[in-house]
Amino acid sequence: MNEGRMHDIGGQPSADGPVSYTGYPEATAEEIARAAQAAAEASQSYRTLPEERRAAFLEHIAAELEGQTERLAETIPEETALPAARARGELARTAGQLRLFATVIRRGDYLGVRIDHADAARTPTRPDLRQYRVPLGPVAVFGASNFPLAFSVAGGDTAAALAAGCPVVFKAHPGHPLTSIVTGAAVRRAVQACEMPSGVFSLLHGASHGVGGTLVEHPMIRAVAFTGSFAGGTALMRLAQTRPEPIPVYAEMGSANPIFLLPGALARDTEALARDYFASLTLGVGQFCTNPGLVFAVRGEALERFCNELSKAAGEQGAQPMLHAGILAAYEAGTERMASAAGVWTVGAGSGEAGRAAAHVYRVSAESFMANPKLAEEVFGPTGLVIELDGPEQMASMAEALSGQLTATVHGEPGEVGVQRPLVNVLEQHVGRVLFNGFPTGVEVCDAMVHGGPWPATSAPQTTSVGTRAIERFLRPVCYQDSPAELLPLALREDNPLGLRRLVDGQWERH
Amino acid sequence: MNEGRMHDIGGQPSADGPVSYTGYPEATAEEIARAAQAAAEASQSYRTLPEERRAAFLEHIAAELEGQTERLAETIPEETALPAARARGELARTAGQLRLFATVIRRGDYLGVRIDHADAARTPTRPDLRQYRVPLGPVAVFGASNFPLAFSVAGGDTAAALAAGCPVVFKAHPGHPLTSIVTGAAVRRAVQACEMPSGVFSLLHGASHGVGGTLVEHPMIRAVAFTGSFAGGTALMRLAQTRPEPIPVYAEMGSANPIFLLPGALARDTEALARDYFASLTLGVGQFCTNPGLVFAVRGEALERFCNELSKAAGEQGAQPMLHAGILAAYEAGTERMASAAGVWTVGAGSGEAGRAAAHVYRVSAESFMANPKLAEEVFGPTGLVIELDGPEQMASMAEALSGQLTATVHGEPGEVGVQRPLVNVLEQHVGRVLFNGFPTGVEVCDAMVHGGPWPATSAPQTTSVGTRAIERFLRPVCYQDSPAELLPLALREDNPLGLRRLVDGQWERH
Repeated sequence: MNEGRMHDIGGQPSADGPVSYTGYPEATAEEIARAAQAAAEASQSYRTLPEERRAAFLEHIAAELEGQTERLAETIPEETALPAARARGELARTAGQLRLFATVIRRGDYLGVRIDHADAARTPTRPDLRQYRVPLGPVAVFGASNFPLAFSVAGGDTAAALAAGCPVVFKAHPGHPLTSIVTGAAVRRAVQACEMPSGVFSLLHGASHGVGGTLVEHPMIRAVAFTGSFAGGTALMRLAQTRPEPIPVYAEMGSANPIFLLPGALARDTEALARDYFASLTLGVGQFCTNPGLVFAVRGEALERFCNELSKAAGEQGAQPMLHAGILAAYEAGTERMASAAGVWTVGAGSGEAGRAAAHVYRVSAESFMANPKLAEEVFGPTGLVIELDGPEQMASMAEALSGQLTATVHGEPGEVGVQRPLVNVLEQHVGRVLFNGFPTGVEVCDAMVHGGPWPATSAPQTTSVGTRAIERFLRPVCYQDSPAELLPLALREDNPLGLRRLVDGQWERH
Repeated sequence: MNEGRMHDIGGQPSADGPVSYTGYPEATAEEIARAAQAAAEASQSYRTLPEERRAAFLEHIAAELEGQTERLAETIPEETALPAARARGELARTAGQLRLFATVIRRGDYLGVRIDHADAARTPTRPDLRQYRVPLGPVAVFGASNFPLAFSVAGGDTAAALAAGCPVVFKAHPGHPLTSIVTGAAVRRAVQACEMPSGVFSLLHGASHGVGGTLVEHPMIRAVAFTGSFAGGTALMRLAQTRPEPIPVYAEMGSANPIFLLPGALARDTEALARDYFASLTLGVGQFCTNPGLVFAVRGEALERFCNELSKAAGEQGAQPMLHAGILAAYEAGTERMASAAGVWTVGAGSGEAGRAAAHVYRVSAESFMANPKLAEEVFGPTGLVIELDGPEQMASMAEALSGQLTATVHGEPGEVGVQRPLVNVLEQHVGRVLFNGFPTGVEVCDAMVHGGPWPATSAPQTTSVGTRAIERFLRPVCYQDSPAELLPLALREDNPLGLRRLVDGQWERH
């Protein structure tokens, strides 16, 4: 699952739990087919629209969303137990994300134009070759439960697909159907106002797996974007791979996001570090995919103080409502599994309360941790595990043993660069993002962000689901050879009417 | 399967058939594991080598290959029945390809550097974020039968993977084991001369599927590149997907490469067009993946003359040896299937001879063609099928019905642009490369080439297997957040010591 930049989306969960899902009619097979077919028809005109119209469309969606701020600030807390301040922050982030993709469209570099001119003098003669990227076609996007806006109906995957020129058929998460309807209606109004082809966006409801499965199997769907559980992501991958025509699945399935505390950093301002870590661990009731579930630190006096402070912080933390009952049940099962694992003992725990989640911090020796691979798996919620090491040189080998992660974080002092270097070298091979002296529960939406990583964090490590490079997931290159000028797409014309950055005869053109 | 730019690799098959495969010991499970393990170890140093050393390594391989020209000009005709002139041409292409990837390394744009600077004044503060691409890790590459050099041991996939910083474990095609040994030894000499880590390149032999399967299932292998049959490519995909950690498979599986002859182009110089088409169809005994197996043209007097000329050309064509007995048997089964399909009649055929392939041209009405999807499938070898249409406006709908293709070709006159436009619009959605007034059996190795396309032409339409963009298949993005300057990789340092093109704060830097 995913997360937003923590301050952008602000606040803490509302005091009340979420209202229960009242049930929306499941989309029928006929409705799913109609949406996919409409997307395929819309694709024919949408893919060739002038770039400026697509950019304006995204901006229009952003404005329509902003018009729903007050309404969503009421609806989201009711449906998800997330607080109103978080709803407002997430809405601003979502609108900003749509506008950022509008700038990507206008920048035009996503088209990846490359031209190799003909050379009639060469033996053999060299043809004129021109490459750019075209949209894959209709994309099925699945909403996440933990971000009712930023990773839902008008969220990152939808923005990236629409920016690429791909229609979207969106499968709403049953955890926030009203929010999905309100945001879906905002997108529909933008479709109409911008005179987009009607099938460019459809919204389907369904609490069962059947709706999503039928959608992914529809022959008109050309790619899938998903944010959610490992079980959900791998199920969609299997369906997509066994279609008569397999299609790519971009699934972001979460991770345990290890933090490595070097001795100097741990000793410098130990109590503040513990408080900051605990704040990141419990932000949004731990319901972020970048929630830092593992802490590696060297045993000693400083680690004892760190753990004491964590224990205190956990004890002061009241129980909080999670997104829905299913997530809470999974969280409680996860913490029980951890508490009962060999060699694990409890550092601290928040007060328990029926129907709400208590924060937990556990501790284990490096040896016991290595002996039980289950301990390295994500527990979705506010639970952390501190792993005691004998020395900092153990960190690189511990990192080597971890599976793919969305993030890893290193806290170190300037004098500790020598120890950090081999660790960072290993981490670079296992994660999508390496952070220093901070916490991973903030994902900036920008050009340089990578929200991805090797399996099992994602199904496609070559990509990111946050940041502008996310658009590349929905594009593929096409080459024109010796095309008459009149038949070239605008992006490939010799006089460069779109003002694109181009690689021409092996050199980047100067602008 | 794949093809080279026809004139580069020149010539026609040798008069003698290939020598039979004498059998090399199958790599054992232990040897496969040793190669994969050595690649993983080599990866640790190879991935962080200075760019210049990697570029020089590729150039050294090219020079070592060129030193084997005379030897390979003898070995290749013996093993594959391809003529010596073709061997020389393909060798020049292969060396040129390695050198082109050296220029890509030096250009550095494949690293995709993006920097978003920190903004402490913003609320919330914005971190410093820096993205570049890192190698995926060891790649298993499978050689193709039809290009013993350009798509084999030191061919395109190997060059792209090594350029990306990924070690290669190469599974030689059993159709040319001696050629593989000679070229593999050339690569090994370059490894030693350039003081590369030993495991950066390994060569495995095996005629059974077991060797390749064991290799793909090895946990140290991080990606697979394959050129060959649909059955082979899909088998590797299944294996890769059912690993505990699934990995990407880049399989190029061929296509039927339709040609659309508009009435004006067909009428202008009909007989020459027929001769040129026949030359492309029979080049290299039709053993190219871009072999143009389907011709769409409007019925009428010009089409009759076109077919008469094809009939004449086929009659004059002697039987020729194919790469090996298995390919010949599959070819003969394919032509028999086509000849016996409902509504198909023979335009012309070359003289038959035991153990050799005769060229065939068939003809069918649009109606019969549409009624039998099998007719649109590739027959690997020198066989073409002419589909008669009622009018040029039928072309776009025929194109719409085709599955994914590596290439499609349009022949039209300047006055026919209006008819071509809707056709090209459809083709762009179904193919990797659209050609005009030429033939697809030449694949220029350059920046703008796309040798790819939607399923079933390839397993990954977002990529290409020829041209410099092929390097991207073996890379993934990583982001550094708030990294101390000393811990940043050179590519991400503020002062840009590698002189890379960078997207900084949303703008491309000027150089």
